[in-house]
Amino acid sequence: MRLEHSYRTERFGAVRIHELQRVIELDSGAGAGDSGSDAIPQDALRAIERELVIVIPCMNETRRVIEGVLSGIPHDCLIVLVSNSDRYPVDRYEIEAQTVEQFCRLAGRPAITVHQRDPGLAAAMKAAGMPELIDDDGLVRRGKGEAMLIGMALAALTGRRYVGYVDADNYVPGAVHEYCKVYAAGLHLADSPYAMVRISWHSKPKVRDGRLFFSRRGRSSEITNAFLNRLVAEYSGFGTDVIATGNAGEHALSLALGMRLRLAGGFAVEPFHYVDLFEQFGGVLESAHPEVMASSVPVLQVETRNPHFHENKGEDHVRGMRTQALNVVYHSPVALPAVRSAIVDFLTGQGALSASAEPPRERIYPPVGSLAFDLLFDALPEAETFREIGAGALAARPA
Amino acid sequence: MRLEHSYRTERFGAVRIHELQRVIELDSGAGAGDSGSDAIPQDALRAIERELVIVIPCMNETRRVIEGVLSGIPHDCLIVLVSNSDRYPVDRYEIEAQTVEQFCRLAGRPAITVHQRDPGLAAAMKAAGMPELIDDDGLVRRGKGEAMLIGMALAALTGRRYVGYVDADNYVPGAVHEYCKVYAAGLHLADSPYAMVRISWHSKPKVRDGRLFFSRRGRSSEITNAFLNRLVAEYSGFGTDVIATGNAGEHALSLALGMRLRLAGGFAVEPFHYVDLFEQFGGVLESAHPEVMASSVPVLQVETRNPHFHENKGEDHVRGMRTQALNVVYHSPVALPAVRSAIVDFLTGQGALSASAEPPRERIYPPVGSLAFDLLFDALPEAETFREIGAGALAARPA
Repeated sequence: MRLEHSYRTERFGAVRIHELQRVIELDSGAGAGDSGSDAIPQDALRAIERELVIVIPCMNETRRVIEGVLSGIPHDCLIVLVSNSDRYPVDRYEIEAQTVEQFCRLAGRPAITVHQRDPGLAAAMKAAGMPELIDDDGLVRRGKGEAMLIGMALAALTGRRYVGYVDADNYVPGAVHEYCKVYAAGLHLADSPYAMVRISWHSKPKVRDGRLFFSRRGRSSEITNAFLNRLVAEYSGFGTDVIATGNAGEHALSLALGMRLRLAGGFAVEPFHYVDLFEQFGGVLESAHPEVMASSVPVLQVETRNPHFHENKGEDHVRGMRTQALNVVYHSPVALPAVRSAIVDFLTGQGALSASAEPPRERIYPPVGSLAFDLLFDALPEAETFREIGAGALAARPA
Repeated sequence: MRLEHSYRTERFGAVRIHELQRVIELDSGAGAGDSGSDAIPQDALRAIERELVIVIPCMNETRRVIEGVLSGIPHDCLIVLVSNSDRYPVDRYEIEAQTVEQFCRLAGRPAITVHQRDPGLAAAMKAAGMPELIDDDGLVRRGKGEAMLIGMALAALTGRRYVGYVDADNYVPGAVHEYCKVYAAGLHLADSPYAMVRISWHSKPKVRDGRLFFSRRGRSSEITNAFLNRLVAEYSGFGTDVIATGNAGEHALSLALGMRLRLAGGFAVEPFHYVDLFEQFGGVLESAHPEVMASSVPVLQVETRNPHFHENKGEDHVRGMRTQALNVVYHSPVALPAVRSAIVDFLTGQGALSASAEPPRERIYPPVGSLAFDLLFDALPEAETFREIGAGALAARPA
């Protein structure tokens, strides 16, 4: 894979946000990079892929679409499917687990699947020390952030070094493939144990007047990015548009970083990555992790070549995402007053907030690294939906 | 890349048509194959890619779409763009050539571009011994088959061993990438100097009632395949549906085979591959190539994972393709009377042929191997639009 070289970075304490880099070639073979581009050879990609867990949060996707997504994930990556699909009247999780199993048998590779609302999973997470994740029904809360957190906890149990996320509702296996290659390329280039790679899709095809229109901008991310950039600019005194991936559902990170991050619930998870990076490693508040402050936290942002081609989740979904994003920015102790009042103005103007009300707080979880992994490892097999497909998915019992 | 193993083949003389194989994994890493699947390691793919020329026939596509297609072609493949785009009022070829040049500079790779209607190209092809290609204006005829023939002639000048085709109107770079990997995988598996790989796309998204519908079947290929299968079945006495790629615009072949094939003009080029294989190597007519008859001509058919997502060219285009396909089958000396009368019945029923008329003949060109390549090599630089980008695209002067 060949990426445009990123020349500019914006610093925020130990956090180094790289300007958006475009993909030049999906496969750069043995080609060399130069001053304008970074070519990452296949062997280097493979070395990362062997350490990379790909988590697929899944909700009610068809077998056909899931099969396509699986086919796009490079063989050496380990697949973890976290499902929040309906189990009644049809047990869609069972169909999903069978799809994964059948694929893995054909492809000769391992995988892990689990259902987010499995009581056994809730018991395991509670036993491991994260009761915050459990709702009034005694189950792990619904929500994308929660699925991602479960995926990260499972990734930690595999003994691998990196975790990346790929949505299940993607109609283009080649795009999934590109995401994974971008993760490997970015993590290889990042050159820090605490790295994150976030994807900005090239375009999003939409049906408009009976034909396809390739939209360049997401309806939610434009707003999220603007306020995150504003947050940064209030400190530097210089306007910036460096953040282009505030809502990046597709992202990957080293587990060394992931274990230290706090994840937000629901759709706040993605923008909160930035907020938590600024809070923990921005140099504004005291960091609990001097080892990270002494290193650096590179955030690479990569614009993919493939269109992001998925089901339209509707306007409510977009509004919900946007509001949750702004809520987490608003409540961050690193957000200066000017940003906070701009958010209130925006939300009020949109009718998403009544006058003189305060944006609600989103749920923020403790870092996954705080879990007692030995307890999680012991309790997990009790979860009825937990499947380890093939051998060698989980590492030996953690110390 | 991992492909489903193909168990069944249909023989027609030396031609061995393999049953459709599906792609299981886009990247099988170092994974091994087994009885159910063929895993082709990256090194084996790379070895083919180094010998593979990818020809892009192009007509009036936007810069953005072309850039995407180029990004999907593996680095080690050599790009040849054959344009039939408008040159007035805007010189679209100039924009295309610049797009290729800019991409190649960023990616550090060579390419060749030429315009199909360049008088210098016509002169070179005529000098090299193919006056049939020239129309009344003294230029190479418009038409996809003609663009493919020019591409194959240029491929032969590069000294590489394989040529593959990728349409320029593809919105999914990941699909282009998959096509090229399938070519390399298929040519590696084919295990014969005279091999062809043809692609059947997974699905074709269409806008229907304001939303997307993933159609599994092409409007033209269903008919083309049915009549080609009928042609085969009339000899074997057994009905068959082995041919699934009669209209495969996306295909690759060894130049050892390509040099011996006759190509048809326009959209007849793709179905005529099968017809010419049956005529030359089917064992029904005498073959001019005993060396091929003593070997075998495997035709691999691969169903890709990515949807084939391109501009809708309209109903006329589809009808035209279908009619041209049936015309070449009808006029083939290997088509038995039952097939010929079925074609006439079908075309008459569709209103594409008046009662008691005969389907028109399509234009069939002599094999590219009959060209005097030394003359072509000498004359080509005279063509004003001929561009050799980077070093090492063309081989040394052919003997």
